[in-house]
Amino acid sequence: MIINKSTIKRIKLIQNYLYDHKLDGFMQPRADSYLGEYVPKSDARLEWVSGFTGSAGVILILREQAFLFVDSRYIIQAKNETKNTGIKVILSSKLSLEKYILKKIKKVKKIAFDPWLHSYFYIKSVLNIENKINTKFIPLKENPIDLIWTNNRDTPPNSQIKIHPLKYAGISSGNKIKNLSIYLKKLHADAYIINQPDSLAWLLNIRGLDLKHTPVILARAIIFNNGSLFLFIDSARINKNVNNHLKRNNIKIFAEKNIVSEIKKISKQKNKILIDPNYVSYALIQDIIVKNSNIIETKCPIEHLKSIKNKTEIKGAFSSHIKDGIALSNFLFWLHKYKISLNSELLAANKIDNLRSKQDNFISTSFETISGFGSNGAIVHYRVTEKSNKKFKSNNLYLCDSGGQYLEGTTDVTRTIAIGKPTLNMKDHFTTVLKGHIALASAIFPYGTTGNELDLLARLPLWKKDINYGHGTGHGVGSCLSVHEGPQRISKGSFTILEPGMITSNEPGYYLTNAYGIRIENLMLVKKIKDKQNKNMLGFEILTLAPIDINLINYDLLTQEEVSWLNNYHEKIYKKISNSLENENKKWLKNVCAPYLKKT
Amino acid sequence: MIINKSTIKRIKLIQNYLYDHKLDGFMQPRADSYLGEYVPKSDARLEWVSGFTGSAGVILILREQAFLFVDSRYIIQAKNETKNTGIKVILSSKLSLEKYILKKIKKVKKIAFDPWLHSYFYIKSVLNIENKINTKFIPLKENPIDLIWTNNRDTPPNSQIKIHPLKYAGISSGNKIKNLSIYLKKLHADAYIINQPDSLAWLLNIRGLDLKHTPVILARAIIFNNGSLFLFIDSARINKNVNNHLKRNNIKIFAEKNIVSEIKKISKQKNKILIDPNYVSYALIQDIIVKNSNIIETKCPIEHLKSIKNKTEIKGAFSSHIKDGIALSNFLFWLHKYKISLNSELLAANKIDNLRSKQDNFISTSFETISGFGSNGAIVHYRVTEKSNKKFKSNNLYLCDSGGQYLEGTTDVTRTIAIGKPTLNMKDHFTTVLKGHIALASAIFPYGTTGNELDLLARLPLWKKDINYGHGTGHGVGSCLSVHEGPQRISKGSFTILEPGMITSNEPGYYLTNAYGIRIENLMLVKKIKDKQNKNMLGFEILTLAPIDINLINYDLLTQEEVSWLNNYHEKIYKKISNSLENENKKWLKNVCAPYLKKT
Repeated sequence: MIINKSTIKRIKLIQNYLYDHKLDGFMQPRADSYLGEYVPKSDARLEWVSGFTGSAGVILILREQAFLFVDSRYIIQAKNETKNTGIKVILSSKLSLEKYILKKIKKVKKIAFDPWLHSYFYIKSVLNIENKINTKFIPLKENPIDLIWTNNRDTPPNSQIKIHPLKYAGISSGNKIKNLSIYLKKLHADAYIINQPDSLAWLLNIRGLDLKHTPVILARAIIFNNGSLFLFIDSARINKNVNNHLKRNNIKIFAEKNIVSEIKKISKQKNKILIDPNYVSYALIQDIIVKNSNIIETKCPIEHLKSIKNKTEIKGAFSSHIKDGIALSNFLFWLHKYKISLNSELLAANKIDNLRSKQDNFISTSFETISGFGSNGAIVHYRVTEKSNKKFKSNNLYLCDSGGQYLEGTTDVTRTIAIGKPTLNMKDHFTTVLKGHIALASAIFPYGTTGNELDLLARLPLWKKDINYGHGTGHGVGSCLSVHEGPQRISKGSFTILEPGMITSNEPGYYLTNAYGIRIENLMLVKKIKDKQNKNMLGFEILTLAPIDINLINYDLLTQEEVSWLNNYHEKIYKKISNSLENENKKWLKNVCAPYLKKT
Repeated sequence: MIINKSTIKRIKLIQNYLYDHKLDGFMQPRADSYLGEYVPKSDARLEWVSGFTGSAGVILILREQAFLFVDSRYIIQAKNETKNTGIKVILSSKLSLEKYILKKIKKVKKIAFDPWLHSYFYIKSVLNIENKINTKFIPLKENPIDLIWTNNRDTPPNSQIKIHPLKYAGISSGNKIKNLSIYLKKLHADAYIINQPDSLAWLLNIRGLDLKHTPVILARAIIFNNGSLFLFIDSARINKNVNNHLKRNNIKIFAEKNIVSEIKKISKQKNKILIDPNYVSYALIQDIIVKNSNIIETKCPIEHLKSIKNKTEIKGAFSSHIKDGIALSNFLFWLHKYKISLNSELLAANKIDNLRSKQDNFISTSFETISGFGSNGAIVHYRVTEKSNKKFKSNNLYLCDSGGQYLEGTTDVTRTIAIGKPTLNMKDHFTTVLKGHIALASAIFPYGTTGNELDLLARLPLWKKDINYGHGTGHGVGSCLSVHEGPQRISKGSFTILEPGMITSNEPGYYLTNAYGIRIENLMLVKKIKDKQNKNMLGFEILTLAPIDINLINYDLLTQEEVSWLNNYHEKIYKKISNSLENENKKWLKNVCAPYLKKT
C-alpha cells in the first residue's frame, strides 16, 4: 500500500491552522488570482496540498476530514492521486461543495477561503448559502497553504513584457483604450477592473511568457473613462522600450499589491466601477461591495471586442495556419512512413511539437499536445506521461490534438489517423464524425444565430447512429492569445451571437472506451457570405490546413455534397502548402489530397 | 373617397367619454377577457370601434387623436380598413404603444383601460412605465365601448357544456384534478386561477361550441389544493347529465360574475394563490395584488400537462389523421381532375371544408381554411373573401392550409399543389422547402433538446439557397382543443424541452411576393426512439397522411436518404388510407404514392 505521507502531513498542518484560528474549514480551488484556465506551478496550491493534478476541482479541508470535489473527467484520476491520504473524492455534478455544506454539515460554523482565488460571482452564491444556514464564510488575509509551502516552491512567473507589434495586433493600444473608455462612458462607469491577463495583453498590445501555453503577462489593471490606465506590475519587468510604449498610451505603473487600495480610493470618490463578476477576484472588491451602488456588474467588455478579429489578425490567422499546415503535413507524412512498431505516443507528441517549433514566429505550443493511441485516444483529456505512453501497433487509431502560438495567431487542430488497417466499424464511426464536421463547416445562417443552435448540426449524424460525444463542439480561439477564448462557443447553452471575425473550433468526436477515440478539429472564421441577396447571412471559412485521413472514410456513407466539400478542402490544402514541402512529402500530399470521384 | 362614418362616430363617442370622465386616453386591444387567440364576435370591440379585423393589435384613443398599433402582418390591411377615419396606424415592432406613451406624450396624465382585456403581465409592464413618467394607468369598472355598442351586438357565446367522453380524453377529470391539486400542494399554493378555456376544457373533460374553431366553453374556474373546484358559469348551460359529471368531481357552480369576490375571499384567508401572469386577466387579481405575498407567479401547470398527450389521445391523433387523410386525398384527387378554369380559391376552400365535415365525429374546422392561388398564396395570413377570390389559371401554385376538430383529435395540414405545369424555379423552391421539412421530420435528438435548436434544421437548406420564411417552423397542437397550443414550439427563442407525447407541426415555407407561396405542413408526434442504446433519444412520428405533390419535386436536389424518406412516407399513406377510397381515387393515390427510384 502506497501512502502519500507528504499529502497527509500537509492536510494535517492546514487542520492545525484551523484549530489555532478557531476555524472549522478551508476551501482551496484549483485557481490562481487571475481565475484563468492555466495556473503557474508557483500557484498550484491544490496540487501541493492534495496531490491532485487535474485542471478543475476544489478541496474542502475540515478539522477532521477533507473532501475533494471534481467533475466526471477527473473522478478516477483524483481517486488515484489521493489514494490512502484520507481525502474523500466527490463527484461535483452529483454533490457540489456548496450543496455539501448546505446538506451535510450544518454544525460547521466558520469556513475560511482565500478571497483572491474565487470570483465575486462564486462568493455571492456562497454568501447566499450563508443566509440559509448557520455557517459563516470568512475571507482570510493570508492563504494557510502559503504559510506552510515555503520550501521547494517555484518563484512566481516574472517574464519581461514584450510589445506585440502593430503589424500583428492590427489596432494600436491607444485606439483600443480610447474605444473602451468611450464604452465606459456610455455605461456611466468611471472605471473597469481588468483581472484577466489575456484581456490586458489584448488591450495594451503586450505579450509575455508567464504561462506555458498562453503568451501573456500575469498582471492587473484599472482603466478609466478618461482613457488613462493604471497597470499593477513589478516595474523590473518593463524595459525602456516597453516603458515608452506604455507612457505613450497614458499608462501609469503601480506596484502589484497597490491595486486594492487604488480601487478603494476610486470607490471613495463615489465613482462607479464596472466589473465582470465572473472574472473579478473577490479580494479586489470585498472592501467596496458594502456600498453596492458603486458597482456596475456586466460582461467583460474587452472579451467581446477581442473575440472579433480585425483585418490584420484575420490575415495573421491565415498565415499562421499555413505554417501550422506545413508542420502538420510533415508530421502526418512522418507518421505515414515511420515504422509503426518504433513509434509511440511520446515520440509522436515530441515530433509534432518539434516540427511546429521550427516555424517562423513560433512562441510555444498553445496547450499540452494530446497524443493518444488506441484506448488512450478515447480519454478526452488524456495527456501522455512516461508511465502511460503506448507504443503504436497495427490496426488501431491514433488521435493527435495540438496547436501553436505564433506571433500572427493561435492554432488548434485534431487529426485521427489509421495506424495499419482500420476496421469497418472504425471507418463508419470516423465517417459519421466527419459528416457532423462537414455539416457544421458548411452551414449558412443569418446574423443572430448562436452556438446553441449550431451545435446540433455536428451531432445529428452521430445521434442517428446512436452515438454522441460528451464535450462541446467548438470554442473561441484568441489571436496569439488563449486557445480557449470567450464569449462565443458552439455548444448547447451558448447564447452568444456569432459575429463575422470570430474564430471558433469545429471538433465533433466519438470515443469508444477501452478501444479508440476519434476527433476531427479545424478552426474556422465566421464571415459574411458575400454573394447572397440577404446581406445578413454568415458562414465559416476554414483556417486549418491538414488532410483528413482518407483511409478512414467509408464513402458510401457520404452524400455527393459531402464528397465535394472534402475534395474542395483537400484541393485548397494542396494549393496552399504543397510548394513549401519537400518532394517526397509533396508527392504524398498530392496523393492524399486527390479528389475522390463518387461512382454514379 | 370612402369615409367610414360609423368608425369616426364611434371614436368620437369614446373621446366624449374621455372628456366626461376627465381621462386623457383609452386603450382597447384585440382581446376578450380570456386573452386567447380567438375572440367571439360579441367581444370584437377593437373591430367595432376601428374597423380593423386583424387578429392582433391595440388602439390608443386620445381626446383628439387615435393610434392603432399592429405588427408587420397587418400594416397594409390596417391602413386599408381605417382609411379616412383619422386613425393613425403604427408598426408596433418599430414603436409599441408603451414606447409611444413613454416617448411621445408626456403630457397625457390619465390613460384608462378595461382590466378584463389585459394580462397581469402586460399591466405590470405598463405600471413600470408609470414609475418613469407622469402618466397614470387607470383600470375602469366599465368598458366605454360596451356603453355605446348596445345595438346590433351578438349575444355572448352560451353553448351547452358537453362531456368529452373518457374514450377520447383518456384520463378522468377526477384524476386530472387530483394530480393538479397535488402539484399545487408541492408549490405550497392553495388555489390556482384558471382563465384559459382550453385548460379548463382539458381539466374537466368538457367541450362546447363557444368558439368557431376551438371546441371550448368560455368560462373560468378556481381549483384548490384539496381537489375541490369552483366553476364560474351560467348554470343554464349545464344539463342534468353534465351536472352529475361535475358534482361527481367535487365541482361547485357559481355565477360568472362572482369570481372576483371569491378570489378576494381566498386571499383574505391568507391563502396563497397561484397565477400565470401571462394568462390571468388583470381584473381577476387587481384587488389582491396589493398583498403581493399572497400570489405565486408561475407557468400555467395545466398547459404542460395538456401538452403531453396520453395513450388514448395519441391513439385518437392517429385515427383522426386517417379520417383527415381520406378527406385530403379526396380533395387532392378532386383538384387533380376538376377543370382548372372552373376552380377558384373559394370553391376549393368550400370543397375541403365540406369533405372534412362528412367525416365521423367532425366538430368544426380547426381554423379558417387558407386557400391561396398564385400571389395570394404568398400572403402568409391570407383568408379568401368574395372580393379577393382568385380563379385558378394554368402554371402556378395553389396553397391550402386547413384542419379539423374531431372528437379524437385536432388536425392541421398544408399542401402546395402545381396547377398546370410548374416552372423550374417553382420546383427548385418547393424541393428546397421539402428538404427542410424532411430534415426536421427525420431528426433524432436527445431529451433536453428545444425547439430553438431544431428550428434551424428546417431552414438550413433554404438559407443555402439564399431564401427563408418569416414565421416559426412548428407550433403545438391540442387534442380536440386549440390548434395552436403551448408551451412547445419549433422556433428560434422557444426553450421548452420537447417531450414524448407532444404534438407539433412542421411547416417550413417560401413566399415569393406577387408570385406564389409554398408551405409543406405535417403534424408530428414526439416519441422515444426504441431501438437505440441511448434511452434518451427522441424523434418524430408523422401523423398527417396526405401525398406531397411529386410534380413539384426536382429529384436532382434530393439525396438518396431524402428520396427514401419520401418513398416511405408515401407508402405509409397508401397503406393507411387507400382501402377507404373509391376506385378511381385509389388508383390515382397509388400513382402519386409510387416509390421514386433514383437513377444510380
